[in-house]
Amino acid sequence: MSTGDPQRAQQASACRADHALLDLLQGGDVRAMSRILTWIEAEDPRLDGMLDAIYARAGRAHVVGLTGVPGAGKSSLVARLTEQFRRSGRRVGVIAVDPSSSLTGGAILGDRIRMASLTQDRGVYIRSMATRGALGGLARSTADAVDVLDAAGFDVVMVETVGVGQDEFEIAEVAQTTVVVSAPGLGDDIQAIKAGILEMADIHVVNKADRPEARKTIADIEAVLSIAGSRRRPGVRVPVLAASAQTGEGIAELAHAIAAHREELRHGDEEARRHAARCERRVSRAMEELALRQVRAGMKGREALSLLDGVRARTIGPRAAARNLIGRIGSPRHVPDIASDSVDDRRHG
Amino acid sequence: MSTGDPQRAQQASACRADHALLDLLQGGDVRAMSRILTWIEAEDPRLDGMLDAIYARAGRAHVVGLTGVPGAGKSSLVARLTEQFRRSGRRVGVIAVDPSSSLTGGAILGDRIRMASLTQDRGVYIRSMATRGALGGLARSTADAVDVLDAAGFDVVMVETVGVGQDEFEIAEVAQTTVVVSAPGLGDDIQAIKAGILEMADIHVVNKADRPEARKTIADIEAVLSIAGSRRRPGVRVPVLAASAQTGEGIAELAHAIAAHREELRHGDEEARRHAARCERRVSRAMEELALRQVRAGMKGREALSLLDGVRARTIGPRAAARNLIGRIGSPRHVPDIASDSVDDRRHG
Repeated sequence: MSTGDPQRAQQASACRADHALLDLLQGGDVRAMSRILTWIEAEDPRLDGMLDAIYARAGRAHVVGLTGVPGAGKSSLVARLTEQFRRSGRRVGVIAVDPSSSLTGGAILGDRIRMASLTQDRGVYIRSMATRGALGGLARSTADAVDVLDAAGFDVVMVETVGVGQDEFEIAEVAQTTVVVSAPGLGDDIQAIKAGILEMADIHVVNKADRPEARKTIADIEAVLSIAGSRRRPGVRVPVLAASAQTGEGIAELAHAIAAHREELRHGDEEARRHAARCERRVSRAMEELALRQVRAGMKGREALSLLDGVRARTIGPRAAARNLIGRIGSPRHVPDIASDSVDDRRHG
Repeated sequence: MSTGDPQRAQQASACRADHALLDLLQGGDVRAMSRILTWIEAEDPRLDGMLDAIYARAGRAHVVGLTGVPGAGKSSLVARLTEQFRRSGRRVGVIAVDPSSSLTGGAILGDRIRMASLTQDRGVYIRSMATRGALGGLARSTADAVDVLDAAGFDVVMVETVGVGQDEFEIAEVAQTTVVVSAPGLGDDIQAIKAGILEMADIHVVNKADRPEARKTIADIEAVLSIAGSRRRPGVRVPVLAASAQTGEGIAELAHAIAAHREELRHGDEEARRHAARCERRVSRAMEELALRQVRAGMKGREALSLLDGVRARTIGPRAAARNLIGRIGSPRHVPDIASDSVDDRRHG
């Protein structure tokens, strides 16, 4: 169609644009941030290099996960915490993880609107994230989104997510401090704790503490904790706080406990251990993504068609055909490394 | 530790044993069948070769999938159909797919017991299958289990499974004929149809037809079908039958419709088209499994540790590390091919 190599020229131009975009991001530019987050939601493989470059620029923010059953009031609590952190001058980014579920999606969206008053503040950025629900997609996208807000200079990045088990994603994969939110009257506090949330909590908070039944909820959680202890950090006492997003009661104490947890992590090797575990999980998830991309690409070639003929005729088994195809696509499909040359341009050793 | 190569000797002996086992299986030996099915549930990678060898020996049975919401009475219907097929001398294998869910597991097990009267008949084999819930594990295991019963000489293999969407597994991945079971009084007949079951059905059956509300359920399904048509086979009218597992009403007609559907498939290219789609899905699932095994293996090497150090220090991004690791493990880890030399020893061209 044309002389020269338009694809290469286009790539080089994309590269320049992305460096400019990364600089804008590091300068805290809201439009750059929003644009990159939209790309992350689309899970475009061409982003790989840029996401690694953003990863290299991240690592300063305190990443706080808030999880709990629907109805516990996580979003309202996040809004209150955001105001509280802002009072001490910290810039606050919020990522609300929307599992691609029509059941919970609506509720989360409703909570978003209640937080609208905060959106006028330039020191606050709130974003709801959803993915197409591919294997581990939500976990990858959330980790990437945290990096974006981190690299953009937010001091605290809060990730709000519904319970455990959604898309096999656990909040501890991205958060340094995990806050489990409960509330009286949901009838399933203890059930939620049983379901594996107990081990995840660095801090328990019982929201709606203005209600009389809150006392019982707190006692229940403390009872379970005293029996089971914290499996994640033996010997460490997990605080159970009371708060009310409605009255503002206990919000300052919760913000303080969150900050104190980070300081606590820094004593001893707990922070390094958790960071290492998170890194391993991320690499593993990135490998899964690459592997599945290769599988999809491998099913399209001419060899695939001929092997499929064999499988149809039962002259070759599906597993032998798969081994053959995996072997052929062993070296990964070339994915342009936008901005990956800047990965070493890191801010912290 | 010792001279010689004990591992190789062990492998050779395993190979001999597996050939013997395959012969026993083809002879219809129940213990051989049960043993292989237990191995399939364990998802042991060493089975790959043997499963391909079994695949080469399968392809004769009529595989019938029965799906529908819990409470529709699928298991009772399967029991009645089994009796019906036995009357015409056909050997019947049943695989009840147990998603690893505590909610439905109990109900399915209860239904199993109701089928106990059939277990004295040597022409009937009933097996409940569960997996550890790894990606696509249920779909792979079910397809493998169908092959086992098929290779063992069962004329009809019925697969009973709860609805759609569990472990992203669709019954049409394994079945030639899909029967969607509904029942009056569940309140969600139309909902189930909306949820994607409509397109899957080759035959609709409304169980508990002895109840007065059954007429309305049938009318509802027919109304939806007349509006939407069958997306899977344009122009083909999907029968809506009434049956009662309790009274036996309509069971002979259902068995007849199932057999007739297979004959119908054989006219035109529909059977070949479906078989090709199933084969492609199986190869794709096998590739995914291999790819994920490689990912797991790749995370354990010395290079992985050094790359993880880089990710921890943010000198390399998680995706760059993943690409590096995927490249290194490009050629698949050697998995001994038990009995794979016999893949060409097939029964049908």
